[in-house]
Amino acid sequence: MAFAVDYVIVGAGFSGAVMAERLATRQNKRCLVIERRNHIGGNAYDRHDKHGVLLHQYGPHYFRTNSDEVISYLSQFTDWHPCEYKILSWANGKYWQFPINLNTFEQFIGRPSTSEEMEQTLAQWRVPIPQPQNSEEVIISQVGWELYELFFRNYTRKQWRREPRDLDPSVCGRIPIRTNRDDRYLSEKFQALPAAGYTRLFEKMLAHPNIHLLLNTDYRQALPHLKFEKLIYTGPVDDFYDHAYGPLPYRSLRFEPETHELEFFQPALQVNYPNDHDFTRIVELKHATRQRLPLTTVIREYPQEFLPGAEPYYPIPAPDTHALYRKYADRAAQERDVIFLGRLATYRYYNMDQVVALALHQYKKLFPD
Amino acid sequence: MAFAVDYVIVGAGFSGAVMAERLATRQNKRCLVIERRNHIGGNAYDRHDKHGVLLHQYGPHYFRTNSDEVISYLSQFTDWHPCEYKILSWANGKYWQFPINLNTFEQFIGRPSTSEEMEQTLAQWRVPIPQPQNSEEVIISQVGWELYELFFRNYTRKQWRREPRDLDPSVCGRIPIRTNRDDRYLSEKFQALPAAGYTRLFEKMLAHPNIHLLLNTDYRQALPHLKFEKLIYTGPVDDFYDHAYGPLPYRSLRFEPETHELEFFQPALQVNYPNDHDFTRIVELKHATRQRLPLTTVIREYPQEFLPGAEPYYPIPAPDTHALYRKYADRAAQERDVIFLGRLATYRYYNMDQVVALALHQYKKLFPD
Repeated sequence: MAFAVDYVIVGAGFSGAVMAERLATRQNKRCLVIERRNHIGGNAYDRHDKHGVLLHQYGPHYFRTNSDEVISYLSQFTDWHPCEYKILSWANGKYWQFPINLNTFEQFIGRPSTSEEMEQTLAQWRVPIPQPQNSEEVIISQVGWELYELFFRNYTRKQWRREPRDLDPSVCGRIPIRTNRDDRYLSEKFQALPAAGYTRLFEKMLAHPNIHLLLNTDYRQALPHLKFEKLIYTGPVDDFYDHAYGPLPYRSLRFEPETHELEFFQPALQVNYPNDHDFTRIVELKHATRQRLPLTTVIREYPQEFLPGAEPYYPIPAPDTHALYRKYADRAAQERDVIFLGRLATYRYYNMDQVVALALHQYKKLFPD
Repeated sequence: MAFAVDYVIVGAGFSGAVMAERLATRQNKRCLVIERRNHIGGNAYDRHDKHGVLLHQYGPHYFRTNSDEVISYLSQFTDWHPCEYKILSWANGKYWQFPINLNTFEQFIGRPSTSEEMEQTLAQWRVPIPQPQNSEEVIISQVGWELYELFFRNYTRKQWRREPRDLDPSVCGRIPIRTNRDDRYLSEKFQALPAAGYTRLFEKMLAHPNIHLLLNTDYRQALPHLKFEKLIYTGPVDDFYDHAYGPLPYRSLRFEPETHELEFFQPALQVNYPNDHDFTRIVELKHATRQRLPLTTVIREYPQEFLPGAEPYYPIPAPDTHALYRKYADRAAQERDVIFLGRLATYRYYNMDQVVALALHQYKKLFPD
């Protein structure tokens, strides 16, 4: 009497949606996507507030990629709105260009400069560390202590509630440091948002009649009543094993939106507050969407502890957490009919394009051409 | 092994959402809402297009009611954006105020007039019919042949592909005829749209953890695998019985959106085209939402035959269709564990507030205080 499908997919974020789409449209597989929340799209879910301002409900999702495969795959489901993501950092009572580039350097030394001078100066400031082992080392080995403390140290502590030296190099190492005037946040060649929003993109991906969507439902409630060949699990891996080895730590966030009768509230898409306030940043997505509204909504982002009921936003990339994750990963590797996929199931801080690429790769492993 | 809930609810429109919400929150009943489409909200579903314009995807839904109960019930889930729905009718190469009121009458006779004169004139034009039996009679008995032919006859034929005399009085009788200068389309005391849209309202209604949502799924596929006490069915009643007595007729629609770089495209929310073009009307929702955008999207509405794959928008209110419906209704009345509810399941052309009121009433029948 069980409801029979070929694949049960837990989670309707990018990992789950890509797998469902591929399996349904390419292999004619019947899929049931089970999602705990009452909407699709995972943390990429976006929506218009009552003023008509498009918001990323779970924090900004700046889509970018160098992968032609990812672009052409996703372009089946959306048009794109090209945009450059610009960020400032508020410190010592003023706005600084961020990530660090030649303009930032000029602000810092208080006069015009050149790439050559910047490179020579950083060479002096730099702490020589051939193989940076953590997020403190990765920054001081590039720009030295002073810029590290101005822009990175406190921001990271606020965001992760850990010292940068207790976090993998990748955390702060994600952020480029440039000696030219390129002031874009990101360096990838393709930077754009889905023209009608992420939610619409997910609706298109999940529209195939082979894909059934069960929302607002813990997969555990449904699983005993389903007949299926394989389970694709994109939720937190520690949850899957009832926290058998103890809970994996995550960072969570609280978002506070605020609407203003202004064309723009702040001078850039994102302003970081490394050293002031309890929030880490204020995001004004309208700078990226360029919505033609006479008002604007900004969102302040307050990092918070991950407690039951909160959303597990970020796996914490650090040696101790990896060690704990390994225990789960070893067990997961022994599953024959469960595939663990995505940011939460593999406890990795991936970008969206990486998640899509990994899911496409996983699909090809299941069904090589 | 079947998935066990208390109630299975087929359809995530107003009828289904109200029942699920009441049963989940008031009776702690576990509900599974099964919806054929991949979104909630039924035909009230709205969304922003890629220009940020809020659209009613399945035709305009002008919310209005005189019921305090309905207002206070829905206000738990939404704020409201008050608005007046204004309509014009394009005929003989010009815009006419519509529904017919004193201003329309003045346009028609080509000079200023008074309510008294209008009443006296209509009294002469009127065809005396004490008990109008159809949509032609209901109009000519109020305003005579000439206004009927200018505004009603062809519009109704286009919309329903039937002669007005072959439709219930209620079809054209819905539209008020006034001898004062009240030019609102509707007369109800409360006229407003959900501030953040209908879709958001439905998300709030369906957010309770007792409510599971199965989208993109024909309920027939799922039903054999479910254990439940009662079924609440809000889909087409003839579908439920596999068209045992033949298919009930519905009218369907095709919508053509078009975006313009204009503050407004047309002078009113809705312009009817009774005698010109293949579409019946052009709706510019921005007149009601008052979105502060420098562009606008209009939707042309083309009535079309209801064929497999099309959406069954309107039950056709006429003696012959009622006779066929009665066969289904008689059979439905004998079901012990199935409740038929809403526009499609009871084959009635209801407004949204009526649907909500009927669902609340149905709930109270199940669970009297």
